[in-house]
Formats: sequence, C-alpha cells, structure tokens
Amino acid sequence: MQSIELLENEQLDNLELCGLRIIQKKDGFKFGTDAVLLSDFAKDIPSENTLDLCSGTGIIPFLLYGKSKTRKFTAVEIQKDMAQMAQKSVELNELSENISVICADLKDSVKILGKRQFDLVTCNPPYLKNSIKNETDSKTIARHEVLCTLEDIIKASSELLKTTGRIAMVHRPTRIAELLYLMRKYKLEPKRMRFVHKNISSPPVLVLVEGLYGAKSDINVQKPLILYDEDMQETDELKEIYGHLRGNKGEI
Amino acid sequence: MQSIELLENEQLDNLELCGLRIIQKKDGFKFGTDAVLLSDFAKDIPSENTLDLCSGTGIIPFLLYGKSKTRKFTAVEIQKDMAQMAQKSVELNELSENISVICADLKDSVKILGKRQFDLVTCNPPYLKNSIKNETDSKTIARHEVLCTLEDIIKASSELLKTTGRIAMVHRPTRIAELLYLMRKYKLEPKRMRFVHKNISSPPVLVLVEGLYGAKSDINVQKPLILYDEDMQETDELKEIYGHLRGNKGEI
Repeated sequence: MQSIELLENEQLDNLELCGLRIIQKKDGFKFGTDAVLLSDFAKDIPSENTLDLCSGTGIIPFLLYGKSKTRKFTAVEIQKDMAQMAQKSVELNELSENISVICADLKDSVKILGKRQFDLVTCNPPYLKNSIKNETDSKTIARHEVLCTLEDIIKASSELLKTTGRIAMVHRPTRIAELLYLMRKYKLEPKRMRFVHKNISSPPVLVLVEGLYGAKSDINVQKPLILYDEDMQETDELKEIYGHLRGNKGEI
Repeated sequence: MQSIELLENEQLDNLELCGLRIIQKKDGFKFGTDAVLLSDFAKDIPSENTLDLCSGTGIIPFLLYGKSKTRKFTAVEIQKDMAQMAQKSVELNELSENISVICADLKDSVKILGKRQFDLVTCNPPYLKNSIKNETDSKTIARHEVLCTLEDIIKASSELLKTTGRIAMVHRPTRIAELLYLMRKYKLEPKRMRFVHKNISSPPVLVLVEGLYGAKSDINVQKPLILYDEDMQETDELKEIYGHLRGNKGEI
C-alpha cells in the first residue's frame, strides 16, 4: 500500500471492501447512502469500461471496483481539489491501472474521451436546480446544478455510451419526470427503476434508474427499496447492501 | 328512477354510491380496481367541467359524480355499444343534465368539443400496445391500443384542457416512462404520481399520475398505495377507497 500525504482538511476512510480506502474532505461533501445504493443498483450491469460522471472523490468507481467484475473505470470530476483527492485515493489503493481520474467539465468529455467508448455510465449528480448563482464552494457545486444541468449529463452520456451501453443514475424523486424525459429524448430508454423509501409508509427519498441506449420502451419498476422497518431498525436488504461499510454510513 | 330496458347480455350493477347504478356487459370488459383507484386519485382535483376519455361504460364520470363536487362531465367513447350502455346508465340515474355521452374517436374530440374547454381530463386508457392488429372485439379495444395510442390521448388532452387544467390517468407501470415523456412533450407537466402495489414486497401493478398544463417541473411522488397486507387482507386504505363498492370489486 502506497504512502500518501493527506492535506490538513482531508481524512482517510476505510471502505471495508477489498481493502479499499478513500480520501474525503473533513468538512466537505462526503459520500452518502445514494452513492452506496447506486453502486449496488449498478453492480450487476456487465461492463468492461465504465465512466463515472460528477465523480467527486471517486466513490462510485471504488465501490464498483469492489462490488462488480468491471476492472476499467474513468472518473470525470470538474472540481480540481476533488479530482486530486480521487487521484490520491487511486494511488493509495494502487489502482492506477484500473481507475483513471480526469479533471474536466463533463460538457467537454466527448471531445476528451471520444464517442461511443463506454459500456456503462454511472452518475450521482447534483440534485438541486441552480437557485444559488453566486455561491460556488465545493459543497454547493456537488449539490446544485451550478456547473452542469441534468440535460448536460444525459446528452454527454448518450454520446459517450456504445450503442449497446447502459446508464445508471440516482436522483431525487422530484426530478424523475425530467430524468425519464431527458433519457428518452437522448435515446437512453429507461428500462429499470426503483424507488427508495426510508420506511414503507413514507414517500420515496431517492430513485434509481437504468437506461439502455436505443432500446424499445417498457420499463421494469421494481419493488420499493425500504431502508428501515417499523421499529426504525435497518431492513435486511439495507444491511446486506451496507454490510461492508459499517463505519462510514452517510446521510441521505 | 327511470325504467331502462337491458339487452340480453347486459347487467345492472349498483355502485352503492349516491344510489348510482351502472350497466355493464355480462361477458364484456367490466370496470376494475383501476377505475375505482383513478376516481379516488382524482376526486379532490377542483373541476367545474370534466372530460373522460376512453370512457367505456362511463364508470369514471359516475364514480366522480358520487365522490367529487364536479357536476358537469363529458364522456367520450369510440365503441358504439359501450357508449349506448353509458347513455342508458345516464338516463337510468337521471343524470342527463350532468353527464353527456359522446360516441366519437378521441382524435376528433378537439374538433367536436372545442379547444381549452375542460378543467380536468381523466382517462383509464387501453394499457397494452397494439400487437393484435386484426382482433377488434370490444374487450380487445378496451385493453389494446387498437383505435388510439397513448400519444393520441395526451395530445388531445393537452388541447382540450384549459391552460390551468389538469389530467389524471392510470396506467401500467411498464408504460410510465412513455407516459411521463408524452405528458411533458405536450406541456402537461407531471406533478403527482402514486404507485399501486398488491403488497409491499411486490413491484407495482398500477400507477396514478396527475399533470398540470404548463406547470414548472418537480413531481410529488407519493407514498405507495398498498392494497393487501401480509395476511392478504385488504389494507385500511383500500377498504376506505372501496367501502361503497363491496359487491362490485373488479380485478386488476
């Protein structure tokens, strides 16, 4: 294991998954339940070459490296300090041959990476529309569509994916109509969708969607993913998804 | 109560709701859980003038007459025998001043009824794509998109609704991506959605969607509507929705 120098505001978290560790900012945007659920949702999608957009600290590629058979990932992140942390995590885990980190605007990603290169695009995007035009700190950029819109992401994904490629995303349920609309607009036909509920008597807090390039319509809406039972205890399914990440469970 | 002559293959069912009764074919397409759930989903949407497309025997206008404050309905049904049954039910219930039945192709409905006339459009459409080109019996037409597509319905609704109008539909979850896509395409922004599950550990069997003409995006995905509990007993919510229809509960 390589020795890596952490900056003062950085911390090292153990993913408890194939010995993987990840660097995150102490006071910054940390990976949450959404990243864990997305990697679980996407782990069985066959891919020899996966691209993660809005990658942040690279959490999705690291989790998918641990959970799936894919061995080649590209992580695109626009924020320099986040991309640097992701790159340091790659080196720390000795995964330079498996995960490439690119600090770039995803709107330039087709130019940089070329069309039709990937079997799978994953993305845990900023959830909120850009109502905060002037704040551009790291957390705001991770949460609000300051630097890219949902349409930018879907458009780029559609061009980056092979014609047999798939996309897997997580988003807030409030955005699901837009997300499905944009996926269809850019030929990424929605084929699988699962809503995530804190408990069964509450509205969903997240939604997971898989699309397949150029496919026929007809979507498989799966049974709800329930996180907690009536006694506020984790459900068996959540325990199974999260089993290896006990110490680092994030907040939705 | 008027006396109405029933044909040999017709039966009279009591809706147990404001004394309403409805004529259905003994061996034909009968109203099901979907019609009951749609009328419940739509009952609080304010409307002075509601249009029901693919109206069949007129079940949605009858249920909404009983459940909502709306007193003016138009029912459009393309099949002559179904429209005749609906008209007989109107006369039987002495609701000729409240419910107008029109036997017409909904693709002609804008021409017949005029643009921007309605506060609410409801529709329980044929669920299945048209794979049975040659069969055109009444049940097939009610279940398959033989005579109209989902796009025909949404396009007509968009033109028939006032610019403050709403649409409420029920459909199969497999069609939800298309439905939301078409609603947005024709400016009927999806604002509320609810999935219906037989039980909590199964995928949804139906989905209810409400759209608002010209609205901003952001959809409220409500908590799941669960029909049966773990012991296969009706949930309290289903009992409440169905309370008045004990004798006539349909099949999904």
